Amino acid sequence: MLVKNPVKKYLFTPGPTPVPPEVLLELARPMIHHRTPEFSAALDQARERMRPLFGTRQEVILLAASGTGAMEAAVTNLLGPGEHAVYVNGGKFGERWGKLLAAHGMAGHEIRVDWGRAARPERVEEALGANPNARAVLMQASETSTCAVHPVAEIAAVTQARGVMLIVDGITSVGVFEQKMDEWGVDALVTGSQKALMLPPGLAMVALSERALERAQRSRSPRYYFDLVRELKAQRDEHTTAWTAAVSLVLGLNKSLEMIHGEGLPQVFARHRVMAEATRAAAPALGLGLLAPDNPAPGVTGILTPPGLDGSKLVRYMRDELGVSVQGGQDQMKGKLVRIGHMGYLSPFDMLIAVAALETALAHLGHRFERGAGVAAAARRIAERA
Amino acid sequence: MLVKNPVKKYLFTPGPTPVPPEVLLELARPMIHHRTPEFSAALDQARERMRPLFGTRQEVILLAASGTGAMEAAVTNLLGPGEHAVYVNGGKFGERWGKLLAAHGMAGHEIRVDWGRAARPERVEEALGANPNARAVLMQASETSTCAVHPVAEIAAVTQARGVMLIVDGITSVGVFEQKMDEWGVDALVTGSQKALMLPPGLAMVALSERALERAQRSRSPRYYFDLVRELKAQRDEHTTAWTAAVSLVLGLNKSLEMIHGEGLPQVFARHRVMAEATRAAAPALGLGLLAPDNPAPGVTGILTPPGLDGSKLVRYMRDELGVSVQGGQDQMKGKLVRIGHMGYLSPFDMLIAVAALETALAHLGHRFERGAGVAAAARRIAERA
Repeated sequence: MLVKNPVKKYLFTPGPTPVPPEVLLELARPMIHHRTPEFSAALDQARERMRPLFGTRQEVILLAASGTGAMEAAVTNLLGPGEHAVYVNGGKFGERWGKLLAAHGMAGHEIRVDWGRAARPERVEEALGANPNARAVLMQASETSTCAVHPVAEIAAVTQARGVMLIVDGITSVGVFEQKMDEWGVDALVTGSQKALMLPPGLAMVALSERALERAQRSRSPRYYFDLVRELKAQRDEHTTAWTAAVSLVLGLNKSLEMIHGEGLPQVFARHRVMAEATRAAAPALGLGLLAPDNPAPGVTGILTPPGLDGSKLVRYMRDELGVSVQGGQDQMKGKLVRIGHMGYLSPFDMLIAVAALETALAHLGHRFERGAGVAAAARRIAERA
Repeated sequence: MLVKNPVKKYLFTPGPTPVPPEVLLELARPMIHHRTPEFSAALDQARERMRPLFGTRQEVILLAASGTGAMEAAVTNLLGPGEHAVYVNGGKFGERWGKLLAAHGMAGHEIRVDWGRAARPERVEEALGANPNARAVLMQASETSTCAVHPVAEIAAVTQARGVMLIVDGITSVGVFEQKMDEWGVDALVTGSQKALMLPPGLAMVALSERALERAQRSRSPRYYFDLVRELKAQRDEHTTAWTAAVSLVLGLNKSLEMIHGEGLPQVFARHRVMAEATRAAAPALGLGLLAPDNPAPGVTGILTPPGLDGSKLVRYMRDELGVSVQGGQDQMKGKLVRIGHMGYLSPFDMLIAVAALETALAHLGHRFERGAGVAAAARRIAERA
């Protein structure tokens, strides 16, 4: 009955996420030049509208790049060659901080965290004690590869007390749950367009604290395209970008932020929370565990596949036969994990589809469970939170 | 009669350029993930379709960035800190090579070329003689700020003879006129999405010669997001991008390249040539000169505004009152130049609109000329070439 490549498709990957029709139409508007009052007005408004999502009064800087570009910008603008930093490696993206530091001739001191676990502030304290010349701590607010959250506020308390900078990858947290960049004391917060911001990939954002901005003015790291001092000057003072802007994505961002603020941030965060809770509730009902049961991310849920069942095959079956895209595990979790994203333009009810597709695929691959139990558990959780 | 901000608008800036409705609709398609057979097929096809525009059998690498990012990638992948290079500075973009080299701790030896003039191969020969340790020459194929072309083939003969690499910014030349990267001996050719490729900005492309690729594998320049070795490996071997792709722009690129090859490259180049000829023909008929009369670019024409007339005001009037966007001059040419772009989704007939708007604005600002003479000259040239 089911056919390969069904007409109607569903995107539940932890980025890219579905783009609302209103935003797609914005992307399809005739092109305008990036040095015009019309573009400047959209850029200014989009940057202003980003601030509450970052929890900052600082300027949010847009970059024509994907999230990794903004991570690199944070590293090269805040640290110089030969300088030391501590980074939390609790997954693929934590590991990336280490690679970025190494690529730029910085000394990265790793805090290794088991996949699915949260970084503990004591370990950051310890690492900073052991590396007193570390100038910064780098971490993820939410580690997309393990579907775990790290305690940014608590770690910020440690870095603040020690006068060390805190650089946070908020790619799957900004717009998903509340970020209090200024209040917590985050020095650089980075995000990308293709998650909670409901846009195609290709645009990244970064905000710097006053202290970070001062550092950026003095950083000796070679950089040009990702020179945040220059980019900030262009965006704040000249109301345009230093290099040619990703015009359509900026216009789309302004539209998606209008929608986000129209819904209201507290409601946006609550919606993400309920989506995550509903998805998580399905796992035990299917006899499955979570990769990050104690500190699950609000933007993406990692469900462990049954032993002996090929998780990669499961994910492919869901995509190719059922038209439902989720993501598998990476590296050590390859073939053992299903990651269901619930960021951006999705409602809690959509999670019923994700779970139903997961049930269908599990049954197809021979896993034994009570059919419908996952969907029922998810639906109950949604009803409770309504 | 004319109103501020007319409903129908025309984009004649030398990038961004108009995006065809077929491509806009492609940008408005529902989002897909970038690690899927569907995306891989589009990426492979787009990269394959780019080759004839570059005149290369090498792999074309896509980057989620604007053109400046690809220029930086060429610099950091082909040169190391402390190394020497010669660069042609005949305008804003030539100057950018110098800034990029300096930002990365390289020694840049400038060949200064008067705005509007072409770089002469003898001067490159001379500069390489004076700097025998220079490893590369960097230049523009077409300098957008002055609307002049530089003789890439002739300069490539010099660099080839000396075993020095040649890095070419083809941002306003790839897809505009024929590039013979392999035949000429260009080691890195760079372009961007928002010119002849008929797309919004946000995607850049670069191809490397065998020799350049070997250099990239050994380059000591710190880089991560713009690591072309890694990016090539991902795109060639894994049929996806190393970092999250600018998905919608890649799908749009594949569509625009389908249109370009549907028209046929010889016809595309001829169309650009006629647009340029028609626009240039208008200038003397209006009593105006060209900034680059001897070596005009096929993608953008620079018409000198009459002495005593504020060129910036002219450009603003055209945009705000007539709905026709062109660009003024930069730096030393500020207020003295009108740049009319004719790249991408435009026909020779569209140039009549650009010239008519220029005439209307010139008349409004008090310039004396025979009304209609510019449009008539442009139309005559189009008819001659039909």
